[in-house]
Amino acid sequence: MRAVVFRGKQKVVVEDVPTPTFTAKLWTGETRQCDHGVIIKAIGTNICGSDLHMYHGRTDLPTGTILGHELTGQIVSVGPQVEFMKVGDIVSVPFNVACGTCKNCRQMLSNTCTSVNSIQPGGAYGYAQMGGWQGLQSQYGLVPYADFNLLRIPTEIPGVADKMDQISLLTDIFPTGFHPAFMCGVNAGSTVYIAGAGPVGRACAAACSLLGAAVIIIGDYYPSRLALMKRQGCFTLDLNDKTINVEDAIEKILGEKGVDVAIDCVGYEAWAHGGNKEAPETAIQDCIKACKFGGKIGIPGVYMPVDLKGKDKDLKQGILDIPLGMIFNKGLQIVGVGQCPVGTYNRRLISAILYGKINISDWVKTTVIPLEDAPKAYSIFDNWQEGSNDKFILDPNGMMSTGGTSSSSSKASTSFLRGDALVE
Amino acid sequence: MRAVVFRGKQKVVVEDVPTPTFTAKLWTGETRQCDHGVIIKAIGTNICGSDLHMYHGRTDLPTGTILGHELTGQIVSVGPQVEFMKVGDIVSVPFNVACGTCKNCRQMLSNTCTSVNSIQPGGAYGYAQMGGWQGLQSQYGLVPYADFNLLRIPTEIPGVADKMDQISLLTDIFPTGFHPAFMCGVNAGSTVYIAGAGPVGRACAAACSLLGAAVIIIGDYYPSRLALMKRQGCFTLDLNDKTINVEDAIEKILGEKGVDVAIDCVGYEAWAHGGNKEAPETAIQDCIKACKFGGKIGIPGVYMPVDLKGKDKDLKQGILDIPLGMIFNKGLQIVGVGQCPVGTYNRRLISAILYGKINISDWVKTTVIPLEDAPKAYSIFDNWQEGSNDKFILDPNGMMSTGGTSSSSSKASTSFLRGDALVE
Amino acid sequence: MRAVVFRGKQKVVVEDVPTPTFTAKLWTGETRQCDHGVIIKAIGTNICGSDLHMYHGRTDLPTGTILGHELTGQIVSVGPQVEFMKVGDIVSVPFNVACGTCKNCRQMLSNTCTSVNSIQPGGAYGYAQMGGWQGLQSQYGLVPYADFNLLRIPTEIPGVADKMDQISLLTDIFPTGFHPAFMCGVNAGSTVYIAGAGPVGRACAAACSLLGAAVIIIGDYYPSRLALMKRQGCFTLDLNDKTINVEDAIEKILGEKGVDVAIDCVGYEAWAHGGNKEAPETAIQDCIKACKFGGKIGIPGVYMPVDLKGKDKDLKQGILDIPLGMIFNKGLQIVGVGQCPVGTYNRRLISAILYGKINISDWVKTTVIPLEDAPKAYSIFDNWQEGSNDKFILDPNGMMSTGGTSSSSSKASTSFLRGDALVE
Amino acid sequence: MRAVVFRGKQKVVVEDVPTPTFTAKLWTGETRQCDHGVIIKAIGTNICGSDLHMYHGRTDLPTGTILGHELTGQIVSVGPQVEFMKVGDIVSVPFNVACGTCKNCRQMLSNTCTSVNSIQPGGAYGYAQMGGWQGLQSQYGLVPYADFNLLRIPTEIPGVADKMDQISLLTDIFPTGFHPAFMCGVNAGSTVYIAGAGPVGRACAAACSLLGAAVIIIGDYYPSRLALMKRQGCFTLDLNDKTINVEDAIEKILGEKGVDVAIDCVGYEAWAHGGNKEAPETAIQDCIKACKFGGKIGIPGVYMPVDLKGKDKDLKQGILDIPLGMIFNKGLQIVGVGQCPVGTYNRRLISAILYGKINISDWVKTTVIPLEDAPKAYSIFDNWQEGSNDKFILDPNGMMSTGGTSSSSSKASTSFLRGDALVE
Repeated sequence: MRAVVFRGKQKVVVEDVPTPTFTAKLWTGETRQCDHGVIIKAIGTNICGSDLHMYHGRTDLPTGTILGHELTGQIVSVGPQVEFMKVGDIVSVPFNVACGTCKNCRQMLSNTCTSVNSIQPGGAYGYAQMGGWQGLQSQYGLVPYADFNLLRIPTEIPGVADKMDQISLLTDIFPTGFHPAFMCGVNAGSTVYIAGAGPVGRACAAACSLLGAAVIIIGDYYPSRLALMKRQGCFTLDLNDKTINVEDAIEKILGEKGVDVAIDCVGYEAWAHGGNKEAPETAIQDCIKACKFGGKIGIPGVYMPVDLKGKDKDLKQGILDIPLGMIFNKGLQIVGVGQCPVGTYNRRLISAILYGKINISDWVKTTVIPLEDAPKAYSIFDNWQEGSNDKFILDPNGMMSTGGTSSSSSKASTSFLRGDALVE
Repeated sequence: MRAVVFRGKQKVVVEDVPTPTFTAKLWTGETRQCDHGVIIKAIGTNICGSDLHMYHGRTDLPTGTILGHELTGQIVSVGPQVEFMKVGDIVSVPFNVACGTCKNCRQMLSNTCTSVNSIQPGGAYGYAQMGGWQGLQSQYGLVPYADFNLLRIPTEIPGVADKMDQISLLTDIFPTGFHPAFMCGVNAGSTVYIAGAGPVGRACAAACSLLGAAVIIIGDYYPSRLALMKRQGCFTLDLNDKTINVEDAIEKILGEKGVDVAIDCVGYEAWAHGGNKEAPETAIQDCIKACKFGGKIGIPGVYMPVDLKGKDKDLKQGILDIPLGMIFNKGLQIVGVGQCPVGTYNRRLISAILYGKINISDWVKTTVIPLEDAPKAYSIFDNWQEGSNDKFILDPNGMMSTGGTSSSSSKASTSFLRGDALVE
Repeated sequence: MRAVVFRGKQKVVVEDVPTPTFTAKLWTGETRQCDHGVIIKAIGTNICGSDLHMYHGRTDLPTGTILGHELTGQIVSVGPQVEFMKVGDIVSVPFNVACGTCKNCRQMLSNTCTSVNSIQPGGAYGYAQMGGWQGLQSQYGLVPYADFNLLRIPTEIPGVADKMDQISLLTDIFPTGFHPAFMCGVNAGSTVYIAGAGPVGRACAAACSLLGAAVIIIGDYYPSRLALMKRQGCFTLDLNDKTINVEDAIEKILGEKGVDVAIDCVGYEAWAHGGNKEAPETAIQDCIKACKFGGKIGIPGVYMPVDLKGKDKDLKQGILDIPLGMIFNKGLQIVGVGQCPVGTYNRRLISAILYGKINISDWVKTTVIPLEDAPKAYSIFDNWQEGSNDKFILDPNGMMSTGGTSSSSSKASTSFLRGDALVE
Repeated sequence: MRAVVFRGKQKVVVEDVPTPTFTAKLWTGETRQCDHGVIIKAIGTNICGSDLHMYHGRTDLPTGTILGHELTGQIVSVGPQVEFMKVGDIVSVPFNVACGTCKNCRQMLSNTCTSVNSIQPGGAYGYAQMGGWQGLQSQYGLVPYADFNLLRIPTEIPGVADKMDQISLLTDIFPTGFHPAFMCGVNAGSTVYIAGAGPVGRACAAACSLLGAAVIIIGDYYPSRLALMKRQGCFTLDLNDKTINVEDAIEKILGEKGVDVAIDCVGYEAWAHGGNKEAPETAIQDCIKACKFGGKIGIPGVYMPVDLKGKDKDLKQGILDIPLGMIFNKGLQIVGVGQCPVGTYNRRLISAILYGKINISDWVKTTVIPLEDAPKAYSIFDNWQEGSNDKFILDPNGMMSTGGTSSSSSKASTSFLRGDALVE
């Protein structure tokens, strides 16, 4: 089958690779027999902002690894230990690999499963330090512990086919944006600052809106992203202004100091105010400043414990300059940190989508492209410029354009194509 | 001044009464000096469904008492101990009377304040068993412990004048509908059943929608109420059908058994399925049936510990036939029971209103009438018929129609009049 | 093998039955292939108060069924799909049968698993309406979904063998007592009323003490039980006094009205004050009276939706006279209702036991007896009299008295025998 | 009256100062009329570790300010607006100054009151940046908003006099140790690492024990502190070992990686492993390492936003090197940060003390000394050495040694003297 393979810094290639079986060859060298797994034919498999960390060569991911962890598809084969999932089911694959029975999984912390990664808790597909599982940007993918991991899409509810683009965002980005909002208690009438209007920031803004937030303020550098957020009812901060003081800007909007909740949707590849110059502490510091006394901070933006490209010894180890004095002084709570346990949220979010409570595609614009165009998409995403797309759905089997899922009740319609065309 | 006075079963009269001072004469016979209080000139003061319990003569409220507990107005005089509230402030008065310093108040349970009622915890204005405080359906009202109790309306946010009808619902009904939804964890993607599409039920539906519920199913007897809810995106159950099985009806809608949350917005004056025959257990039993195993139930609908009109000895003491076996079997949690601590929620709800996250008047239709029409309004509400109004705002000082609040930044505009005309 | 078999009202017999295999024959007539299961050799398997509901013939449990759901033992055979549990592991079996992957299990509600019971959510061994799984009062037992369901006892921590009597209480009674205390927020300084000083009530008192409760008041009829609780630091109420008013008695102890939390550890087989006369509402009504305004109620005591022996039509359907007016008036929350999801708590409780934070056997006195004595034990428990034992551990394989578990690091020592001798 | 006055770096003097009135002269230059206040005659007023930050001259506290914020005493005069507190009441004064009616106070965040500090939210007595309120290490003290702030000691419960040393720890240190434990969800069976066995660390360990923690591991440099903790049932880590790896040391104790909760009770004046060399990140970094994946961190140890003695530009602004990459990687939650809202916890803690659930003096050893010895006590505490005392209670009115409180039911007995004698 065809798959997107990492071939070193800023180089991905679509190659022929063996189709997965129930015997998983991890890139750590381990072999795991996955009779509890299923083989899924991809309907859509997305490129994630966090894939860029691997793409940038800032991690120890070995070349030759298949990338990707955001698969939506149809089950074509079930392992002998699978009980509840069936061939033909349309499913959403959480990016977390988890066993379902360890002490963390049974506490709804599937992001820190202790069984699936021999180095440290927490597994993911095609991702550094997350257990060595092959990525999912390919025609077919293996998902272990399928009964626990998979979300079956309820195709009996009308309209599923028309919402496959929204549904494809349930594997990672929508729950990833929702998790910090939920953990920080965003609720009716909340005021929120979101650092970053990239795909995760926009998904987070959507989540806050869904939860009833009264005021959502979002900061970014790109006029088109800010304009989109303004159309969705958010207030915006233009961070190209070198002299911007986030605290004052927020007070001006609210008429009082500080938001209830600030969420860092950027992480360690942040830019300094003024733009286009890496300054890793910018986003988290803005969040600390943005919060009211007694407020809460969420951190879905990625901070890596090892950063091969870090500019100094501290940064190489993921150590940042943090105003802990101000955090203490304000009595801030920092929750919703780290990878999202997708399975904790995807059931509620698919209901919100299918019953029309939210159109997540209005917030995170998606673009469907053939798998073979993945290298181009990585490059565009990496060199992202005003007007480009930033959320690509790879369509490895031509199912999104042709509507060719084998489940008669759920063929993806041409409406799926309403994402903008690939920018060239 | 003029005030709405209870004169016995189904009899209210608008009478001249003394204007309140900081010396409160409680109808329990006590006198309380309220230097911590303010005198408020009414902009609007609403009739509540729970006023009907007094109106029906089912309580021990003495004749001669002023009714009402839903006041929005302007401060015209502040007691010598008031520090933060100012003359001229436009304020919303929570229906709870609370001291702000007892052990319950400091735990955000202002509904069970231990200081303001010499009989039992919990105070309210013009209400049986709630401490003897005079009601607020009058031109002026006394609010004790004003710094703690009052919500100042942020008139610096544009549009306050145009939203005075929505704001008037913050004194009771919107928080009362929100409280059980919040306590039951209604959140993104939740499924909810609401018993009763009267004003509280509709406010509760609005709250669930604001919190991101995916499916809201609401049951009632009146086609016009159900039609309104359908327009707002709810599913509806027509309880005129004597044979309706709530459990099955819900399964048909959801495609699976049971909602996450069921909320009883009716209470002990419920009708049997088929309609127009009191059967006190109907609403709560429907909620128990409606819930999934492991679900949650909220009860804002009033159940009284003493019911002078109860049909048997048990009902007279507020004792009902409850399927506790089924509650246990399903492992249900019953939370959000009893009177709402309004001050816990009104700040977040006014933000949701002022920033346009919700138009609560689209859910709870209000009608502004002169204070002198109160007797007629009580009668209409009590004999409520298809097409009548069910949420009356009394306008004792002609401020809502003429826009004559003295705060220049916040005069109620004529848009306030968009409620339907009084049905005669 | 030998097993305790239900042979009709108040009749249990120890009989030869087939040793379990991975093919489960449910008494509903279904067959379930359990390659995910393990076969466990019993070290101890307890008689539970809820077994008496079956014993009394108040349920539809068919004769011929093996009773029991409280097994602690050693794995002697693992099914081909079991990954993490090993032959030789000493394990505690939660009484819940659960799949680990349904929407309820993944929300830590293993008590309402939707996969293991074809009638309604929730499974248990040897129990009416809970899926038809064979009971565990036998030499060997089958536990399905073993990786999810079982708690491995960490025999590497010293002292396990000496604490097997305490450990045996982790299958049901200790978590069952802990669940309502935890859900009701019992914490440092809490005041608690517990209805019933039977085994569950005493386990609940232990849990409250472990959680830091300042005042634990427990009501019962038996002097010996009350004396035991007094020795453990509780206050006690003697319910033989027909005129006792729980509300007043509590106020006398506390110096103020009402406890923070009241927990009904009795259920529908309650006695009236004065004693020895069934009055099903007594315990729950006492709890409602005992609670302060704004307090919380937990209900681990069993209320059945069907009671074949109920004294009237309502009681036969589990419908009781409940003072809902008072519940509403006080604003009580009712949480921690129904069967306990044991797997949510057993990990934390075994730590508390093994690190010596609590000696649960000081609260729930256990007595080890041979399996063959089970009929006698049922009869003693049923006709419980002052001075009798009320928590029997059946020892089907002679392992508790002889210390003969095959794991060298964990043989049960003779200290296990410190329970009092069987009363005859 | 006599009071402890700050006279510059490492210099405190006991001086004559004016007795407080209801007109508060703040050291910010403001005057606040406090008719809502009471004047309290000190029974005991403690020296807190955080007083040393002022003592060290690392803050902008002006010379001439009275120090201290831990007062327990008897009301001798009530302001004209005080309603519930009475002359003669024995009261505990939370260190927080709070109004009780602002949006933070009504959400149980009295640590961030927006009314009592004109610079930023949050007030305290005798403390830098906290509003300018005079300290309480003096014979008499003014407490504003007395009805809200004060905890009346229930002298009707026997034994109060004998427990005045324990009760004196309710003003700050016991709640301060309890807050992070509570916020981090320490509960039955939890495993906890505590950085620092000073008074706060020991109070925190006591709180964790009270809440049912199974394993408490505490790290410090002083053998006598570690020995005390060992006697109380804790595991200990000796941080004099330069090569100690907290992660490994914990794994060795637990038999598995990482504690559920780690609590930094040290703050920015931490020492490096090996001892006696300031290394501000040591304690927080140890906590991050100590936590399991998915664990929680509390931070009661003080980090200041301005540190005049900070060794570099970053430290002067309270900016530290924090391994945010590791925090993200582990998915840690950081809660219970900053000053404690004492009033949220002191009611439950006094119940735990008075009903004998905990003897906090067994954990935090106190020593009663005359007020005039305060300078010596500051010096001893500052130059703390093995065997010295570390929690001094100043007795400005000779009430603790002579038992001379005027309330006959509550005279402090000589048992109060059981603290060790002052080391010289």
